[in-house]
Amino acid sequence: MNSHPVNVAVIGASGYSGEELVRLLLHHPQVELTAVTSRQYAGQTLAQIFPKFASHPRAKALRFSEPNAELLARQAEVVFLALPHGVAAEFAVPLLQHGCRVIDLSADFRLRNAEVYREFYTHAHPAPDLLAQAVYGLPEVHRAQIQGARLVASPGCYPTSILLPTLPLLRAGLIRSHGIIADSLSGVSGAGRKAEADYLFCECNESVRPYAVPKHRHLSEIEEQLSLAAGAKVVLQFTPHLIPVNRGILTTLYFTPTRRLSCLDDETARSLEIVACYREAYATEPFVRLLEGRALPDTKNVVGTNVLEIAWCLDPRTGRLIVMSAEDNLIKGAGGQAVQSMNIMCGFPETAGLA
Amino acid sequence: MNSHPVNVAVIGASGYSGEELVRLLLHHPQVELTAVTSRQYAGQTLAQIFPKFASHPRAKALRFSEPNAELLARQAEVVFLALPHGVAAEFAVPLLQHGCRVIDLSADFRLRNAEVYREFYTHAHPAPDLLAQAVYGLPEVHRAQIQGARLVASPGCYPTSILLPTLPLLRAGLIRSHGIIADSLSGVSGAGRKAEADYLFCECNESVRPYAVPKHRHLSEIEEQLSLAAGAKVVLQFTPHLIPVNRGILTTLYFTPTRRLSCLDDETARSLEIVACYREAYATEPFVRLLEGRALPDTKNVVGTNVLEIAWCLDPRTGRLIVMSAEDNLIKGAGGQAVQSMNIMCGFPETAGLA
Amino acid sequence: MNSHPVNVAVIGASGYSGEELVRLLLHHPQVELTAVTSRQYAGQTLAQIFPKFASHPRAKALRFSEPNAELLARQAEVVFLALPHGVAAEFAVPLLQHGCRVIDLSADFRLRNAEVYREFYTHAHPAPDLLAQAVYGLPEVHRAQIQGARLVASPGCYPTSILLPTLPLLRAGLIRSHGIIADSLSGVSGAGRKAEADYLFCECNESVRPYAVPKHRHLSEIEEQLSLAAGAKVVLQFTPHLIPVNRGILTTLYFTPTRRLSCLDDETARSLEIVACYREAYATEPFVRLLEGRALPDTKNVVGTNVLEIAWCLDPRTGRLIVMSAEDNLIKGAGGQAVQSMNIMCGFPETAGLA
Amino acid sequence: MNSHPVNVAVIGASGYSGEELVRLLLHHPQVELTAVTSRQYAGQTLAQIFPKFASHPRAKALRFSEPNAELLARQAEVVFLALPHGVAAEFAVPLLQHGCRVIDLSADFRLRNAEVYREFYTHAHPAPDLLAQAVYGLPEVHRAQIQGARLVASPGCYPTSILLPTLPLLRAGLIRSHGIIADSLSGVSGAGRKAEADYLFCECNESVRPYAVPKHRHLSEIEEQLSLAAGAKVVLQFTPHLIPVNRGILTTLYFTPTRRLSCLDDETARSLEIVACYREAYATEPFVRLLEGRALPDTKNVVGTNVLEIAWCLDPRTGRLIVMSAEDNLIKGAGGQAVQSMNIMCGFPETAGLA
Repeated sequence: MNSHPVNVAVIGASGYSGEELVRLLLHHPQVELTAVTSRQYAGQTLAQIFPKFASHPRAKALRFSEPNAELLARQAEVVFLALPHGVAAEFAVPLLQHGCRVIDLSADFRLRNAEVYREFYTHAHPAPDLLAQAVYGLPEVHRAQIQGARLVASPGCYPTSILLPTLPLLRAGLIRSHGIIADSLSGVSGAGRKAEADYLFCECNESVRPYAVPKHRHLSEIEEQLSLAAGAKVVLQFTPHLIPVNRGILTTLYFTPTRRLSCLDDETARSLEIVACYREAYATEPFVRLLEGRALPDTKNVVGTNVLEIAWCLDPRTGRLIVMSAEDNLIKGAGGQAVQSMNIMCGFPETAGLA
Repeated sequence: MNSHPVNVAVIGASGYSGEELVRLLLHHPQVELTAVTSRQYAGQTLAQIFPKFASHPRAKALRFSEPNAELLARQAEVVFLALPHGVAAEFAVPLLQHGCRVIDLSADFRLRNAEVYREFYTHAHPAPDLLAQAVYGLPEVHRAQIQGARLVASPGCYPTSILLPTLPLLRAGLIRSHGIIADSLSGVSGAGRKAEADYLFCECNESVRPYAVPKHRHLSEIEEQLSLAAGAKVVLQFTPHLIPVNRGILTTLYFTPTRRLSCLDDETARSLEIVACYREAYATEPFVRLLEGRALPDTKNVVGTNVLEIAWCLDPRTGRLIVMSAEDNLIKGAGGQAVQSMNIMCGFPETAGLA
Repeated sequence: MNSHPVNVAVIGASGYSGEELVRLLLHHPQVELTAVTSRQYAGQTLAQIFPKFASHPRAKALRFSEPNAELLARQAEVVFLALPHGVAAEFAVPLLQHGCRVIDLSADFRLRNAEVYREFYTHAHPAPDLLAQAVYGLPEVHRAQIQGARLVASPGCYPTSILLPTLPLLRAGLIRSHGIIADSLSGVSGAGRKAEADYLFCECNESVRPYAVPKHRHLSEIEEQLSLAAGAKVVLQFTPHLIPVNRGILTTLYFTPTRRLSCLDDETARSLEIVACYREAYATEPFVRLLEGRALPDTKNVVGTNVLEIAWCLDPRTGRLIVMSAEDNLIKGAGGQAVQSMNIMCGFPETAGLA
Repeated sequence: MNSHPVNVAVIGASGYSGEELVRLLLHHPQVELTAVTSRQYAGQTLAQIFPKFASHPRAKALRFSEPNAELLARQAEVVFLALPHGVAAEFAVPLLQHGCRVIDLSADFRLRNAEVYREFYTHAHPAPDLLAQAVYGLPEVHRAQIQGARLVASPGCYPTSILLPTLPLLRAGLIRSHGIIADSLSGVSGAGRKAEADYLFCECNESVRPYAVPKHRHLSEIEEQLSLAAGAKVVLQFTPHLIPVNRGILTTLYFTPTRRLSCLDDETARSLEIVACYREAYATEPFVRLLEGRALPDTKNVVGTNVLEIAWCLDPRTGRLIVMSAEDNLIKGAGGQAVQSMNIMCGFPETAGLA
């Protein structure tokens, strides 16, 4: 196990994901945060921009710089990109050339197919040659590849909340790959720190609304990962909703079992096969919590942690399997998962800085 | 049209539905609120218990009384029951015998079948003989029967948000009755003014959670109404979630069209047949708003009103029809809809006191 | 009493105050809303911009226009200005010249002294000649002058919450004019519909913060009105705080009585003299509610209404008089109060459209 | 410095303060949490009652027990009491007799004078003999006494937010001890996990209200500590308000300087003497953050931490000094401060488990 600290930089550290990532890295026992960049805040310290970090000595000393790939490559071995899609790729290319390991929190390297990227992101992929070497950074699924990766594409918040509950069932052939529905509820930080009227307090508070129906961009990476697991093209129904909490995603999934599942007991509607499948997949995973008995996920039990909660029940009336998950969209859905990948890449304990 | 005022009483006026009903009745131009009952508050004025009504002269004068059916029958021609199920029926029986017209906001008379009631409410129906004469108080669907009804069972909040968008499609044969999914998000007032830890501010704020999965009690009335419309037994998948707003229900419905629907235009994914169906059903309804263009429902646009908003889109990728609705659970989902029924029963303009 | 409807226009109808004003005017029984202006939304209907109004027939028909004083003067007898300070005066001048009666919701005409305006608003007053004829639109205090006014300066939200509780005590000589402290808590709509990062949901939710300490602009009009009542220059300590609610202002005032006040009873700490003073001032006022017994103001009891609640207690330990008020910042603190002034100017019942 | 782990128990671990304390102790590097008690939850594991802790191995193993002083004294060297006042003292007595060190989060040992306790808590003090040996657990003020204490009375949430900003100014003679006003805003967790209607989500959300005016119980300990610092009896004006956030207290303090203070510069209204006084008191304190420039406290910057933020400004118009503080009521205002005292008592680094 590696134990000397690693020098780390964050490019685009001023949004909500970037801020949370910086918080995690400041407290990570094996990380030295050597650079944070922000065009908007260049010259100011972390403490000035994020008063909540101001009691941390590093936050008082470290100043935002203008992003400069060559310079960053001298300051850091691992560089996180917390940038908008399209922009992230512009930095990934030179950083990789200079030998950095790159963990990208944008959508730029999550897809293998540049055409799908163009369809969903409405512009040509800025660095299609890198797609083949990028690893989709879902540690519970792609741990081995992450270990040796030079470029990790950290998954989106919605995809994480959908893929972790779905992939084991799909791989085990317990559910049909056709007709899956994912209904998701997200806190407002998911929209980023954009000064747009739609995300003003008075527009979000006391409001609940669907959006991006029926073709949210995250569908592309979810479907690609589901298709890989199913061995066939999967088309998903996905409806995101905006709800008035700062953080948290709650996803409710509707599946059709491929065969009659045994029912463990009537009260909890748990099924032996589903229990076995999830336990096999996640019993030893530090960041997946399988709920027991009649407990259902609640975002307040995962917010502030890197944990994703899963519960499920068979509905004997409809024959469907309902699976529900909860996560913190900025941690397991963004910065925390990225740090988890870094831990794997650097040989640190996977929970370092995340417990 | 009737224009002399009607004497009205509310039994169980201390919960959230009762309070909202009282507010509507206090401001109703053709209503004289003559009695409100509450065991807990008997002897105190409306103004003392609900300070927000204190500027209304009637609220300063009217005192809560102990509920007494005989006395109430002398004080009121129309009596609203805002009581828990089971208790409501106990009052309905004597009030009807004394000649009152009764509008019940509980679940006691929403089902035709006492066995289904026993299955979902876990006790025998307290007055099964009345089930045959009760009218399900969804004015947009059962207006004619409400007009002559002596006993109206005002629908639940979730059922209203699901039935209004679904029934026209089902009756027109545009969607399959099998495999319907309703995913609903409700504000906390839906749980009532119960002093339970689960509904404390700190337990609900910054929290999102499913509950009563997979068999919420409201399924019984929803399925009965859907089955009537479909002419065949309909089994529904229904998942309610609790979200941190005071009021509002947002429901997302997943339907399978029975045939290929034309697509009006690519951008809005509206379909000619769906547009026509909804317009036929609701174009002249004062309390159903069909959204146009790309607009999607938002609870903040209906809270405080008796309006239910509907929008829909065809998903060409999955072939499904997605319909979304928003309402105020305490108005269109409870007190407002009950007043709408009263207006119909009394020959008042249907929008009286509700605009 | 006048009863034919009055033609009314709103300039700058797209902010929160403008929107609330439009809502009140749409439902006002003696108002015909003939024009709404917004540079940003010109050409679109009220229903398109504010979906919550979409069920109102007028909202479907009325389109935002570019603001044009000459044209507006032909369309309306009364014109409301819901514009930023500085801009409002530019419209007031030609509208008055064309014979309109103007009710300005900005700060432009609230002060008598153009120098004080320059000090607090940091630019020269755009129309100092109009200051002498403008009437400060606090109906409970300046009703007689409002009646004949051609230009009403509708008070700010904080000033209303401070002046109504303070002025009667000051005029009666019950409190010292020196050393008054006003500590106010405001909902986020007070900041307007500005797309600034400070007012994003995630920046306001789960946050409480003072701002504009120690010299908020509203001090200028508060101090001018207090000084007029005291007959001497009053300097106020005023601290506004932003709290995560959409609407509502709660103000806590600290006064020093000029003499020993009798204490009505120990439990409620009400004083005979204070009770008498407030009753004399407000007992017949429809929009001021004096709380009795031990009740304290709560914004949730006034939000959505034009009512300001007042409660008070003598603190025998410190000798101070504590007075607390609550109002809806967008109604009694803005649009509602402006409509109240219009009702007075037009000879309508003062509560028309506001009950 | 002590470095072997200490065995710790928490009595009354089911309220919000107890839960937060448990969270801190579970993650404390030098603590072994050996017992948690709760009559209500006896027999269940921490993980079952608090799902958010369920990923922590200790939480899966540790079960709530019935509180038994003798048994606890064998399980723990340090015992935290997170019990209601009155009840806490009943456990403190036998625990101390059995040799435990006790940190009490209730009000039972915060006052030196049993008569004042009786006045404010309306019952006789249950263990007046212990008052003399109890140390008021405000580490920044009483660190030396805490070190050797056997019984620490951890301060209330409001007192902490008022005392830390006030004591240095009072001791330095910079402000008058007469006429101080503290206006405080608290999140709802301050009311505890009581299933009372007043604290239901719908009663607190979209609501702001003062309460316990003018004589909140916390006045007793605040005044005692202020009087000790001033060397004379101090009577405080204190108005608490309930605001719709889970956590956080924001206090605004109004002081009268004893003499003319220099003004560092016009823009920030900082004063040399105040800056010097606060720096002397807190420059090296890890958990007090003095804001610089024009920054003002915001609860969102301290929630989740043990930090109290302080900012101040001189108002040249009134001559007053305004000081504002922000803290997390459950951490610096309760569990975190108690752990800070434990660290001092046990010779651990004061920031252990709190950074």
